[in-house]
Amino acid sequence: MTFTPHPIDPSLDLELVRHVPVPPEAVFAAWTDPESIKQWFAPRPYSVPECEIDLRPGGGFRTVMCDPDGEQMADSTGCYLDIVPNERLVWTSALTTDYRPQEGFMPFTAILEFQPDGSGGCNYRAIAIHQDQAGRDQHEEMGFHEGWGTVVDQMVEHIQSAA
Amino acid sequence: MTFTPHPIDPSLDLELVRHVPVPPEAVFAAWTDPESIKQWFAPRPYSVPECEIDLRPGGGFRTVMCDPDGEQMADSTGCYLDIVPNERLVWTSALTTDYRPQEGFMPFTAILEFQPDGSGGCNYRAIAIHQDQAGRDQHEEMGFHEGWGTVVDQMVEHIQSAA
Repeated sequence: MTFTPHPIDPSLDLELVRHVPVPPEAVFAAWTDPESIKQWFAPRPYSVPECEIDLRPGGGFRTVMCDPDGEQMADSTGCYLDIVPNERLVWTSALTTDYRPQEGFMPFTAILEFQPDGSGGCNYRAIAIHQDQAGRDQHEEMGFHEGWGTVVDQMVEHIQSAA
Repeated sequence: MTFTPHPIDPSLDLELVRHVPVPPEAVFAAWTDPESIKQWFAPRPYSVPECEIDLRPGGGFRTVMCDPDGEQMADSTGCYLDIVPNERLVWTSALTTDYRPQEGFMPFTAILEFQPDGSGGCNYRAIAIHQDQAGRDQHEEMGFHEGWGTVVDQMVEHIQSAA
């Protein structure tokens, strides 16, 4: 396997890099199974009661997110762009099912990279690619690093508890 | 080869279907070579003096279009999404290089399908997928059918003159 990390533009992109003690296969599975997504995709006590995934390039996904009182905050859709099993997953909020453009608040493309560490864990990298610096800064101020970091912890916990 | 035409939603999508007397391989080549694009991509006397193509999923393309006086009208970029040589090409104006979201007037995704007719020509299908009915109607009023039809004629002429 040859692997070239996706280059980033620090003025437009945000990046989270973490080592996790679970293998790439488990991380890829966690990211692509709706029942798994419901368990970890929102920082608790926020929740994701609904998730739909059509895992193919051009396939759509949908998540419903609720606040701690169970009130719906967001019903979001996106589109898968590139899928390399156990290694890489790319999706965007700028498109929905079958590559249809959609309007939305702060559109971004997510690139997720999962690389084996040689001892059963993996190097996890999440990149959010924005259309402009305002979008990047807004995403950072909304707590990108804390939020995306917390859900990685929750994902690992879910994988380990299910193992 | 199994082929399933992309389904459309007539309230959101526009479709041009044509039979052309040139093979799918030539049409795919015409759509993916910048020097060819310059010859036919704008209805004459409009012109395309500049074109850049990075033909890979996530690769960008750029075209500069000029009016009949040679004044620049548009400098447009997009992103390739799906590439099946000689058969199918998908790109969107909602993203640019490396899947970065971009703002723009009337974003749409184009799906181009080229199917051999069994006698040296092909069935050419172009679909424009819009985010809403307003975008679809605007594109139609701007002359989608005439414009996209004219450039197919110009493309065929270019392929035949270069043969």
